[in-house]
Amino acid sequence: MTDSVVDRLRAALGERVDTSESGRAAMRADKSGHAADGMPLAVVHAASIADVQTTMRIASQTGTPVVPRGAGTGLAGGANTGTGEISLSVLGMDRILEVRPDDLLAVVEPGIINADLNEALAADGVWWAPDPASRDIATVGGNIATGAGGLLCAKYGVVRDAVLALDVVLADGRLLHLGHRSVKGVTGLDLTSLFIGSEGVLGIVVGATLKLRRLVPGQVHTLAATFPDVRAAAAASAAVTAAGIQPSIMELMDATCLAAAHRLLGLAPMPAGAAQLTVQTDGPAAAAEADAIADVLRAAGGSVAASGDRAEGERLLAIRRAMHPAMLTLGTTLIEDVSVPRSRLAAMFDEIARVERDHGVVIPTVAHAGDGNLHPNFIFDGPDVPPQIWAAADDLFRAALRLGGTLTGEHGIGVLKSRWLAAELGDDQWQLQRQVKAVFDPQNILNPGKVFAPPAA
Amino acid sequence: MTDSVVDRLRAALGERVDTSESGRAAMRADKSGHAADGMPLAVVHAASIADVQTTMRIASQTGTPVVPRGAGTGLAGGANTGTGEISLSVLGMDRILEVRPDDLLAVVEPGIINADLNEALAADGVWWAPDPASRDIATVGGNIATGAGGLLCAKYGVVRDAVLALDVVLADGRLLHLGHRSVKGVTGLDLTSLFIGSEGVLGIVVGATLKLRRLVPGQVHTLAATFPDVRAAAAASAAVTAAGIQPSIMELMDATCLAAAHRLLGLAPMPAGAAQLTVQTDGPAAAAEADAIADVLRAAGGSVAASGDRAEGERLLAIRRAMHPAMLTLGTTLIEDVSVPRSRLAAMFDEIARVERDHGVVIPTVAHAGDGNLHPNFIFDGPDVPPQIWAAADDLFRAALRLGGTLTGEHGIGVLKSRWLAAELGDDQWQLQRQVKAVFDPQNILNPGKVFAPPAA
Repeated sequence: MTDSVVDRLRAALGERVDTSESGRAAMRADKSGHAADGMPLAVVHAASIADVQTTMRIASQTGTPVVPRGAGTGLAGGANTGTGEISLSVLGMDRILEVRPDDLLAVVEPGIINADLNEALAADGVWWAPDPASRDIATVGGNIATGAGGLLCAKYGVVRDAVLALDVVLADGRLLHLGHRSVKGVTGLDLTSLFIGSEGVLGIVVGATLKLRRLVPGQVHTLAATFPDVRAAAAASAAVTAAGIQPSIMELMDATCLAAAHRLLGLAPMPAGAAQLTVQTDGPAAAAEADAIADVLRAAGGSVAASGDRAEGERLLAIRRAMHPAMLTLGTTLIEDVSVPRSRLAAMFDEIARVERDHGVVIPTVAHAGDGNLHPNFIFDGPDVPPQIWAAADDLFRAALRLGGTLTGEHGIGVLKSRWLAAELGDDQWQLQRQVKAVFDPQNILNPGKVFAPPAA
Repeated sequence: MTDSVVDRLRAALGERVDTSESGRAAMRADKSGHAADGMPLAVVHAASIADVQTTMRIASQTGTPVVPRGAGTGLAGGANTGTGEISLSVLGMDRILEVRPDDLLAVVEPGIINADLNEALAADGVWWAPDPASRDIATVGGNIATGAGGLLCAKYGVVRDAVLALDVVLADGRLLHLGHRSVKGVTGLDLTSLFIGSEGVLGIVVGATLKLRRLVPGQVHTLAATFPDVRAAAAASAAVTAAGIQPSIMELMDATCLAAAHRLLGLAPMPAGAAQLTVQTDGPAAAAEADAIADVLRAAGGSVAASGDRAEGERLLAIRRAMHPAMLTLGTTLIEDVSVPRSRLAAMFDEIARVERDHGVVIPTVAHAGDGNLHPNFIFDGPDVPPQIWAAADDLFRAALRLGGTLTGEHGIGVLKSRWLAAELGDDQWQLQRQVKAVFDPQNILNPGKVFAPPAA
């Protein structure tokens, strides 16, 4: 049976099927640092929609699980592929098929890298707003599959706000065209939105019609504000939002994060305990908005440095962008992703401090403070998450839910957070979501075991 | 059986159940001018979530169809209730439960009128952006159920962009909480988005957490540009979008519409054949943007009047807002709602002119030119749409689809457009959408016969 699946794939797709030890091993993990048990059967490097359809037809005929994959930069294990599974990569499907600046849309294949797309779009004076920190290495298809966010979300929206239409291949190999090319469209149920963030459990995104924005004219202004502790920085960021000023970016780094990033980049160390907010404004009122935000930050106890220089702004933001590699220097990390209403950001940092004390763990945390999305990093030794780290994470997840928040702002559930899914959704909704998946994938061959795993006891 | 349903409703809900002739008759129609056959069994005026749950439990136990209803301002017959059906009105559930300007969210009941909500929010310096032309009489719940748009969509988005979470009652009476209060959230499948625009076939919206915006500071600038014909006006609007300037509002009225609105409002008549674009800009760059747009409109052959005065701007827009009543002075109307990519607006007007010629009908048309959404009005005598009008509408729908457009930009499918749904979705997606509905409503008691009717031959 196993041989026959690989034989059939190879007969149909030839060299697009990789069964090498190294090729298969590379598909076991994503950037979360966690790997699937065992080895995939094969890797299919799809070059066309027809390749994806062929793979899914063989998979459905043989009942073989398929794990769709882009660049493998996910942080929840959603693309990890293990024993008996086919890894279906669409990384090679990376063309821009159409750019229409007059209609503010682009049609792309899923494998194009976010930053590459935006570099190409710039020539037409347009951009696609979702900007996950991984934008230089992550695919647009992966951004869609996870419902990615990023740094600019509070002002410019998330992936859900930036997709008009999707072409998807279902588990049985059928190709569907979802959505529309027009700004408005309410024909039937919004399956386009249902696919955004569906993490490969409903179908495989093989094409996307993206909603673009005009590039923002004018100078970007950047502020870096240092606070004596993280709670003060969090309260200051909430004060900016409450004051009604909308920065394009507002990032918060706690003391441990800031110190690690400074070490990694070879910068002078910061005062002990100091936390930092990095804020950018853009658009026609950028300078005035930066001034107004600086006033709020100073009134909240911050020491503020301001710059209207693009290179200096990029240097300040580079510290924030170095966060993920900086964490890797501290040990293995479980990068969490809770999100709370913006007014509860300081309260969430209080909860993180409590979890640190109660569980005896260190949880360096960075936050997209403009939108209330926090990335607490649980640091440990060795490849597997130890039980005491999971216990601390459990405590932290439930605290976020109590504050009106959510388990995951932008990384997704994948395999790492599936046991908490029912705690947030409730049992009724959890069951209903599984039934919706079954409509699209009645054999449960698309990314089985991801997202919908049995609830935690 | 029929008596027993009404008896059970009355036993459980008392005076909230209206079985009067006039009360039931009022639920047969919405603002489309089209009515269901026969009379509803009863009208339930729900005052609480519990009332909605009670109604749905009785309905599911007895297999009785239920048609959810807000203010009944829909234009596709989605809330029309007929023989053997219960009309379930949530119009009385109209409280604002929470406003959080610091988190840019509000929690509301579904029956609140859009304009009333925005009047209340203004005190906190915030607003909810969706602004259908019916905003003074339509409910927020109805806006959500239809995925409403409006005049401001190209700049400020549609309902899909402005809802964080929904509380819904399922067909069997269970209450579910979908979505999240945070800006970001990707926990599980996005059922919130699936419910937006679902026209009452999946469940009943009993609460909504809305995403708000800050009120825009600064003066609104208004332009009215007259063109010799509608094609020139459409081409000019596309030129504005292509020039990269984003008006808040850009409305187009063709000659017949403009003349009818002028007559209704007692204004001096316009030159024969003249079409008009009404454009507004807002925000910090409003004056400069209005100047730039005026240049584009003049270069496109328009005669432009500009005003930075709020009252004068409202007067110009009042002509556009008088459109629906003005059409009613011409006869019975079938108000259509196709949407095309903005660059195809002039081509769509060419198609409308062709359909007028080929079918010998008059189709006054207004368009949200900023987003490509057109409302062709088919005028006829008597209460029922005659076959030749449907034939012309069929021709027009298919033309919109050929131009990369959609059947409905913001009104929904309801009962009037259901026979064309499969033409846009394709048979596979049409079947799949019906299966998704069946997950939520296995007995098919929620708004049966709406949206998913058999395809046209």
